[in-house]
Amino acid sequence: MSLHDPARPSEESPAERVFAARAGDLFQLLRDGRPWTRAELAGTTGLARSTVAGRVDLLMHSGFVVSVGEALSSGGRPPSRFAFHPRARTILAADVGASHVRVALTDLGGSVLAEERAQWPVSDGPEAVLGHVVDTCGRLMAEAGCPPERLAGIGIGLPGPVEHATGRPVKPPIMPGWDGFDVVGFVQAAFAVPVLVDNDVNIMALGERAGFWPDVEDLLFVKVATGIGSGIISSGQLQRGADGTAGDLGHVRVARGEGVVCRCGNTGCLEAIASGAAVARALAAEGVAVASGAEVIALAAGGSLPAVQALRQAGRDIGEVLATCVNLLNPSVIVIGGSMAAAGEHIMAGVREVVYHRSPPLATTNLRVVLSRAGERAAVMGASQLVSQHVLSPAGIEAALAGSAVGVG
Amino acid sequence: MSLHDPARPSEESPAERVFAARAGDLFQLLRDGRPWTRAELAGTTGLARSTVAGRVDLLMHSGFVVSVGEALSSGGRPPSRFAFHPRARTILAADVGASHVRVALTDLGGSVLAEERAQWPVSDGPEAVLGHVVDTCGRLMAEAGCPPERLAGIGIGLPGPVEHATGRPVKPPIMPGWDGFDVVGFVQAAFAVPVLVDNDVNIMALGERAGFWPDVEDLLFVKVATGIGSGIISSGQLQRGADGTAGDLGHVRVARGEGVVCRCGNTGCLEAIASGAAVARALAAEGVAVASGAEVIALAAGGSLPAVQALRQAGRDIGEVLATCVNLLNPSVIVIGGSMAAAGEHIMAGVREVVYHRSPPLATTNLRVVLSRAGERAAVMGASQLVSQHVLSPAGIEAALAGSAVGVG
Repeated sequence: MSLHDPARPSEESPAERVFAARAGDLFQLLRDGRPWTRAELAGTTGLARSTVAGRVDLLMHSGFVVSVGEALSSGGRPPSRFAFHPRARTILAADVGASHVRVALTDLGGSVLAEERAQWPVSDGPEAVLGHVVDTCGRLMAEAGCPPERLAGIGIGLPGPVEHATGRPVKPPIMPGWDGFDVVGFVQAAFAVPVLVDNDVNIMALGERAGFWPDVEDLLFVKVATGIGSGIISSGQLQRGADGTAGDLGHVRVARGEGVVCRCGNTGCLEAIASGAAVARALAAEGVAVASGAEVIALAAGGSLPAVQALRQAGRDIGEVLATCVNLLNPSVIVIGGSMAAAGEHIMAGVREVVYHRSPPLATTNLRVVLSRAGERAAVMGASQLVSQHVLSPAGIEAALAGSAVGVG
Repeated sequence: MSLHDPARPSEESPAERVFAARAGDLFQLLRDGRPWTRAELAGTTGLARSTVAGRVDLLMHSGFVVSVGEALSSGGRPPSRFAFHPRARTILAADVGASHVRVALTDLGGSVLAEERAQWPVSDGPEAVLGHVVDTCGRLMAEAGCPPERLAGIGIGLPGPVEHATGRPVKPPIMPGWDGFDVVGFVQAAFAVPVLVDNDVNIMALGERAGFWPDVEDLLFVKVATGIGSGIISSGQLQRGADGTAGDLGHVRVARGEGVVCRCGNTGCLEAIASGAAVARALAAEGVAVASGAEVIALAAGGSLPAVQALRQAGRDIGEVLATCVNLLNPSVIVIGGSMAAAGEHIMAGVREVVYHRSPPLATTNLRVVLSRAGERAAVMGASQLVSQHVLSPAGIEAALAGSAVGVG
């Protein structure tokens, strides 16, 4: 595994697909978490028993697979069972937001083992923010007694467009000093492991799906906060588009935004009328004393009718764009997350009202529009998922086996 | 290969992926069309030379692979070279439109060997229309001297929503009598081969990409005709969505459509103001004597200013929705096809004007908006592609090898 080129695990060349019966390929069966006997593995794959035995030995030596007791037998010595061991390695997952940094230590299954959150403005620039991330990573590892060789990789979410192949931010609007910065190189100077970087909304979509909708193939995760964006999962795969900008909901034009200037320079963008900041601005202009989306939510919780109405209208505006998303993408689940999701039903009612009115019946029969369940942890869960997809892929496992084998403590 | 369950070739289970080094897997390397020696195949895959030799023999016996001469050698007997033989099997590809049926006989590479087109209203119902398709298929096969055992499969495009897994139309608006009809069963009563059915716009996207944009991973094909729809290819894969309705552009709301009632029952849909029929209606209301989109195009070609202006405005309206598509999907190529694409630059100028004005700079830097090059053949090319993806997949090749081997004539 090259440190500088963490290719997406799903992109296997024909040569990689044909060069199989490797331990990394066999491991894909074991990823389902249930215990397998050698005979079951041989029966399912058609591989020779001796080949299976050798591969299982390799995987056990590496720690990725452990013996989990014995199966029932019709006679003779009962066969051993083997299963994926998520604690074989750890992952560091960092969620860099506009004004905070959250770092979590997880296992390969995405379970959070330790976590730290700090206020930290992304506008401090990459060295300061990533320096803090690296420090926190080291501290979490040390506190958990996790030796460096147990670290499988680091996943990082950033609040702006990222060129996924290189991990470099691309003209991020709210991240001064970050454009083109070598995030991977900076972090790898401290930790010599694969480092995968993506935009925060993309990894929130991955995290929400991995944690709560593992069987859903078409999911749209919408983040409503200071800005508005989305992460698109189609056919079970995160879709980044040709330049990594897919899912950019915030700058879709909506009718009610006519004439309202957006920070992107265009007029009529969804974000200019329905983000947390925009809702607060609109209420303030009506004479209600609010300075942020969070304050609007607090007012609404206290029963303020103007605040409730403003949130519901923001929901309708978001719903207008989501109705278009339903036409185009036909997801079965739309998840609303981000800080404004704390407004709960005030926003959801508006969203559902428009989506179910505007979208074609065939596309809404099985559609669910729900609040995020991962909540504040969606991004670190997704960053962990980004890494586990990479290191548990056939190529990732092979690379781990070729490197130093690590026993399970 | 089950006749009744033509699963998508991309959906391989982990067991299928691990059970490799089969001939069908090895064949994936040969699909690139260039000649390979056994040594090159062994070197690239890591398989034993003897294993490669056995697999190549199987593939040659089936006809999928042929010897294509000898490679240069540094001494001794020059090694043989092998390559994919697209003529090993044929495919029947049917494009059922609102008022026409086109059937083509192609090879496995999508080259059209014979073709027939007839006027035939889809509203005649499935037995009549598919009866004609089956008759034409038989005739094309007979005329080409193609024995039944050489037929790899049949692909069919229909002008309405199709449940891809079963091939049954789902509440298609312009296809009376087709709702839930067992298209696959009907056709398989005449030809015992895999039958794959999809909506026409999806297969037009597949055909356009296979023929002209094979290296483009994110492509949007927009059909502008009596209706408006699109086929979405993201990450190199056709995206159908959770219920098979993805790409439904025609019923996205646009500002200028405010108050205009669409045949779907909603108001403000793109299709209600920018389809061929809608443009003709609008011009007729202004006193210009036109009855169809084709007549509008003819007028514009003759220099009629109102016709030119109406087409350009339709382009702008389509562009408004495409700008949203660029935000959401970030394609690198948008192809405009369907009968109204014959309006050429009159429509394209309007589309480009709005797309490049509204879409984010990062997403349009590498974006091309082009006219369809496959033209009237896009659908049969796509229907052929649907079948070849299926039968040339690892599982498809294995199934063919397990069945009766067919030599190359």
